[in-house]
Amino acid sequence: MLASLRLKKNEERRIKQGHLWVFSNEVDIQATPLKDFEPGQQVIIEGNNGKPLGMGYVNPKTLICARILSRSPKLEMNLKFLKKRIQAAQALRELSFDKPFYRLIFAEADGLPGLVIDRFGDVFSVQISTAGMEAVKDDILQVLENLYHPQAIVLKNELAARELEGLPLYEEVIGELPENLLIEENTTQFAIPVQGGQKTGWFYDHRQSRARLQQLVEGKRVLDVFSYLGGWGVACANAGAEEVTCIDASEFALDGVDSNAQLNGVQDKVITIQGNAFDVLNALKMEAHKYDVVIVDPPAFIKRKKDFKQGFEAYKRINQLAMRVLEKDGILVSASCSHHLTRDQLLQAVQSAGRHIDRQVQLFDQGHQGPDHPVHPAIPETEYIKTLFFKVGASW
Amino acid sequence: MLASLRLKKNEERRIKQGHLWVFSNEVDIQATPLKDFEPGQQVIIEGNNGKPLGMGYVNPKTLICARILSRSPKLEMNLKFLKKRIQAAQALRELSFDKPFYRLIFAEADGLPGLVIDRFGDVFSVQISTAGMEAVKDDILQVLENLYHPQAIVLKNELAARELEGLPLYEEVIGELPENLLIEENTTQFAIPVQGGQKTGWFYDHRQSRARLQQLVEGKRVLDVFSYLGGWGVACANAGAEEVTCIDASEFALDGVDSNAQLNGVQDKVITIQGNAFDVLNALKMEAHKYDVVIVDPPAFIKRKKDFKQGFEAYKRINQLAMRVLEKDGILVSASCSHHLTRDQLLQAVQSAGRHIDRQVQLFDQGHQGPDHPVHPAIPETEYIKTLFFKVGASW
Repeated sequence: MLASLRLKKNEERRIKQGHLWVFSNEVDIQATPLKDFEPGQQVIIEGNNGKPLGMGYVNPKTLICARILSRSPKLEMNLKFLKKRIQAAQALRELSFDKPFYRLIFAEADGLPGLVIDRFGDVFSVQISTAGMEAVKDDILQVLENLYHPQAIVLKNELAARELEGLPLYEEVIGELPENLLIEENTTQFAIPVQGGQKTGWFYDHRQSRARLQQLVEGKRVLDVFSYLGGWGVACANAGAEEVTCIDASEFALDGVDSNAQLNGVQDKVITIQGNAFDVLNALKMEAHKYDVVIVDPPAFIKRKKDFKQGFEAYKRINQLAMRVLEKDGILVSASCSHHLTRDQLLQAVQSAGRHIDRQVQLFDQGHQGPDHPVHPAIPETEYIKTLFFKVGASW
Repeated sequence: MLASLRLKKNEERRIKQGHLWVFSNEVDIQATPLKDFEPGQQVIIEGNNGKPLGMGYVNPKTLICARILSRSPKLEMNLKFLKKRIQAAQALRELSFDKPFYRLIFAEADGLPGLVIDRFGDVFSVQISTAGMEAVKDDILQVLENLYHPQAIVLKNELAARELEGLPLYEEVIGELPENLLIEENTTQFAIPVQGGQKTGWFYDHRQSRARLQQLVEGKRVLDVFSYLGGWGVACANAGAEEVTCIDASEFALDGVDSNAQLNGVQDKVITIQGNAFDVLNALKMEAHKYDVVIVDPPAFIKRKKDFKQGFEAYKRINQLAMRVLEKDGILVSASCSHHLTRDQLLQAVQSAGRHIDRQVQLFDQGHQGPDHPVHPAIPETEYIKTLFFKVGASW
């Protein structure tokens, strides 16, 4: 029988609406002092009237002091529980994808707060960000072993959030990581640096928007700003773009672009420019370079709410620079992965940038994080990607 | 030289940001009395300092008393102007569609406020909703004639909005309307009742979401609620659904479903139920019917802002009923065309409905109005469709 964590009066509303988080100021610490719990301990979460709201796990050290795992107070998160959730997540992915390349687990949105798993065929990249998930790490590895017999599992437990949870940062490889790990996204192959790359090694979240862009680029000259390994750019080259230029600050990333271009036999069409995106765009504009399609998919400019103003200006500036190197009636693909920037705000940033330099923009399509990054409808924090497709013309 | 319409002090901000509407209370009626203008008259719109903001047309009788057509005060809306705008709109459509079946002009979003044109191959369905557009009706018809040599143009000038503009309601056919007008949407053929049907005869706006759904329905049992002519249902049957049931209140619509099913050779898989959607769903639930996929694409439940509360409850209720006839882990496609219901509000309606009957919903994809219904980024009113794809499972 699990111990109970009791909420203060009138603090169960958000939970009842489906949210999974309990904040530390919502706990009735007279009845159930937080310091009595171990980090990661599983508990029954109950309303102030003692009625159970569900079960979850606790971390007395963090602002989000508990996360709900199930509405049923009778369950525990164990091997069986994890297997069921992982299989359900797999079934959701298999609705949309017929090959084993996808984010298998997307934390809260798959009912497994604190856990992210990317699947690269027989290799699994695992990120655990909470003490509650860390406590069942062996069970998670066991389920992956039983279900998929992986060639390798890479524990990418390097997230800064782990420090707040009192967890060590480390990376660990279990099994044999192949030297050259290949995935397929849409119809393009990519080599993935699970070690040394950003985050889990690859960003699956733009898959559908990239497929959409592939329909628009035949014979076009494409500029991929913040290219990383060429997820957009190489896909465009592969879809018949005449010429693709990838910009990234990282030499490691651009080496990846080159390898990926080669892998798909489009190396003659893909060139790379290393440098700060703002500087490179300015230079391209000075030299009067023009492109038919420009993709702007920056890292999050707004990581915390308080960065909003500065970040918003950065989105405006980068999109404005992108428009300046765009041919008349060209296509601008503008993405943001900042959760704190809404879709409407990104739209406003681009509109404002367009007005400033006397361009008329029309939004003709919109993309979202793919089906392997489901959104939990009660938890807005699970949605972060927006991708807007604009035609940019002369002012009306 | 056009007459001027002068704005009050500090009323040019929205226009400068890119919006195209002037409200009657924003006009400096001392300087330029509205009553001096003819309905539909073209004017230069200027700030309070006399600086031109652009040109547009006026209707002194309506709340939106002027709409901007161009930022250049030197232009006039004539044959040349209309041709240029229509050709630009066509080019935008041809980016995405290789066959001549699409909304050719989407009013403000294509720089032609008051004008909607749907293209059904060689037949054009035209809706004019403002006096300013009515004034250039002959030019519009001339441009269509010159560019497309249409077999027929149907003027569907029956919108209630016309009455506010002081315009008569009428329908008129120019040329020879074929008895059986066929279009192709994605890979499905449909017969379109340009006369007698709803709005322009067909709703092109869900094309991409329908294509997306087609990827998910093979071997599935599908329920299409508010089916109209079977835009969703027949497309699903055509994509390999095992069985499709279409519900609509209109016998005319369901006859259309039957014809369209036949047209695509899927008549053995498609059945229809005539009746009020709420009643039919209740009856299906009582009889314990279950479906793998349910599409809920109702007419706008919130036509005016003041209908919000009642309409929001209706969205909740219809989605809840839909979930009740859904198999475990089934797919719910929930759409809304109410501009006054935001995407977040629709999401909330479905989440709330799910919690109420103890279901866990996961949002795994999102659709929007297609590229032939572009959004003007400064005019939120040009966006109205949202389509949410949910997996609906047992409560976690």
